[in-house]
Amino acid sequence: MVRTFNKRVELFRESPTRKIDKIKEEEARRGKDIILLSTGQPSIPPPRRTRELLSRDLLEESSHLYSYTPTRGYASLIEAIVEDMKYFGVELEPEQVTATAGGQSALFAAITSLIEPGDEVIVLDPMYFGYWPLLDYAGAKVKTVTTTFQGGFQPDPEKLKEAVSRRTKMIIVVSPDNPTGRVLSLEAAKTIADLAVEHDFWILVDEAYRTLVYEGEHVYIYNIAPGHTVALNAFSKDPGIPGWRLGFAYGPAEAIRRIRLVVQETVYCPPSPAQRLVEYYLRDRETRLSFMEYLRREYTRRRDTLLKALEEHLPEVVAFKPQGGMFVFADFTPLLKGMTAEELAVRLLREEGVAVVPGSYFSQTHKGSIRLSFSGEPPERLRLGVEKIASFLRRAG
Amino acid sequence: MVRTFNKRVELFRESPTRKIDKIKEEEARRGKDIILLSTGQPSIPPPRRTRELLSRDLLEESSHLYSYTPTRGYASLIEAIVEDMKYFGVELEPEQVTATAGGQSALFAAITSLIEPGDEVIVLDPMYFGYWPLLDYAGAKVKTVTTTFQGGFQPDPEKLKEAVSRRTKMIIVVSPDNPTGRVLSLEAAKTIADLAVEHDFWILVDEAYRTLVYEGEHVYIYNIAPGHTVALNAFSKDPGIPGWRLGFAYGPAEAIRRIRLVVQETVYCPPSPAQRLVEYYLRDRETRLSFMEYLRREYTRRRDTLLKALEEHLPEVVAFKPQGGMFVFADFTPLLKGMTAEELAVRLLREEGVAVVPGSYFSQTHKGSIRLSFSGEPPERLRLGVEKIASFLRRAG
Repeated sequence: MVRTFNKRVELFRESPTRKIDKIKEEEARRGKDIILLSTGQPSIPPPRRTRELLSRDLLEESSHLYSYTPTRGYASLIEAIVEDMKYFGVELEPEQVTATAGGQSALFAAITSLIEPGDEVIVLDPMYFGYWPLLDYAGAKVKTVTTTFQGGFQPDPEKLKEAVSRRTKMIIVVSPDNPTGRVLSLEAAKTIADLAVEHDFWILVDEAYRTLVYEGEHVYIYNIAPGHTVALNAFSKDPGIPGWRLGFAYGPAEAIRRIRLVVQETVYCPPSPAQRLVEYYLRDRETRLSFMEYLRREYTRRRDTLLKALEEHLPEVVAFKPQGGMFVFADFTPLLKGMTAEELAVRLLREEGVAVVPGSYFSQTHKGSIRLSFSGEPPERLRLGVEKIASFLRRAG
Repeated sequence: MVRTFNKRVELFRESPTRKIDKIKEEEARRGKDIILLSTGQPSIPPPRRTRELLSRDLLEESSHLYSYTPTRGYASLIEAIVEDMKYFGVELEPEQVTATAGGQSALFAAITSLIEPGDEVIVLDPMYFGYWPLLDYAGAKVKTVTTTFQGGFQPDPEKLKEAVSRRTKMIIVVSPDNPTGRVLSLEAAKTIADLAVEHDFWILVDEAYRTLVYEGEHVYIYNIAPGHTVALNAFSKDPGIPGWRLGFAYGPAEAIRRIRLVVQETVYCPPSPAQRLVEYYLRDRETRLSFMEYLRREYTRRRDTLLKALEEHLPEVVAFKPQGGMFVFADFTPLLKGMTAEELAVRLLREEGVAVVPGSYFSQTHKGSIRLSFSGEPPERLRLGVEKIASFLRRAG
């Protein structure tokens, strides 16, 4: 026997944004000030009140905070999540909820539990790139439904119907969306729910940005098709602890039980400090709601600053006004002049110190687009970033 | 398409100790005081000095502690781990190390990366039960080499040689061992290393308890067969943060790269609070060494108390004196009187409030044994636990 490796693991590739991250770190080490328009990483720490409670716990002479927790999470955390979801109009039993080690852990566990090799999965394009390696690893056959700037990135009902076959096992929807910031319309949600019930397939809905909605309202598709929906959530964006790794999945108990078993085998339990922090956050309703409102206000202001700067300095760019999330997705095609969007992204980073993510990482069709984050920098630096992009493109043009 | 589930995930079962945990929680809710001899969970929090540093960080108005980290862990954490391993005589390059979301994440990632369906894997019996579902999921064909009380749970060289075939892909060794507390002898380590090199297979060595050695010395098998060894480590036992989920794997860079990709897809990055805490711990060499020494002294005291109580109150029991780890593995066969060890464990918990784990969870041959932890209770309660077991068995007999 030669010491070979598992071949399916070869399907995993370094996350494409890590390429951008590496150049970013190189430039930062050279002392360059980098304007971070590439990351879905909040620049705002969780509420001070919540952090103070955990800070105090660390000084207690007890081992409780350090112990293993149940794989599903502390019973008291699950209760807090059920209460919180109820506030948003979703009624769940505790056995319909399981905590995960962040959003990625929820994605991996859900796709691993629900997909069998050869199953067809419908996805929208553009889509968060993190789904691709998981779908390849699971052996899914992917059918893509393209969405457009003109259509507000809502999936077209006719195209959805055409994509469904007898082998459809799942549709994946991210709402609010990454990278487009589109919030799924009630009409689109109903179409998807109807198809799922009629053809008996799963809806996997990624709601990581659900509380960051600036216009309209997040539709809980679970409430339309409860037997067919598995919803994935994360605390990475609100209260903003991506590195702490906590999320949760909810849906039919039989699906949740399996997701929990995959979490057990991959990480044993979600990290306890994140569970404790989030429990403090969710149980203090006043702090939770006012912080959520603060994030919403602050991110609306940043989004609007970014959009205005684009309009002013780069009028050729078609930018979609996001209804939620952390990103502006914008078509730079008329300005690329032979460059690919990835080449543009690399040059912006090396020459201007502005980090963005090329649309080609998310899309087969919107390859001339760029994803610009407004979560990682204050308004004045968002403006500065756009000015630098504009000045670079003027020189390059 | 019907909403079915992935069949391989059916191979995952709730961890067997969770059964014991559930009864334990039920009894605790009824107000029963439970003596915890079931868990490998330290009752000692990490050093106060280390906790104070993190507690202070939580009050800073910065988002840095909350951000995603590289999948391999902070570069500064990897440096601290490399330094720490060097102190123990293992020289590693940074690319030979990747952090994981705890020991379980390291196990999952290593087995998933290294095993292809149909590969033969040699394991010792008894063995930590957590390996079974992972090996089944990976499609491994398992060959078992039995170890015995009389042989001090060291694997017999002849039996090891017999187990090797042309299809052997890996041998799994846990040292210090769970459940037996055996520290692999230098002789056994050399035999395993020679076989691995001769037949070109992987050694997967689980070193989660490596700093908790009470007699003899931990052998770093990587130093004997560096090209063939992937070693898994955890910070769950030292400094004692199982719920925080941080471990690491080291070995040949090509294996480590793949393990890192699996960690990326399953959790994205190891949790940042654990990384920060462990970095503080490892970098403060004085605190680290004196805490390690304190754990070693304290656990030696507890181990000896437990062994003495067994000798005094249950002279019929054959207990193996563990050289490391957190457990005493003891043969209760002469006292079972028709009960299985699992039945005994359940009755001890229900009737006496003493939680233990039956040997049948770890072994096909030592089914009449019981694993008793000495990490979760102070000496006087260890004694009380044994007295209660003895009094139960007298009544049952």
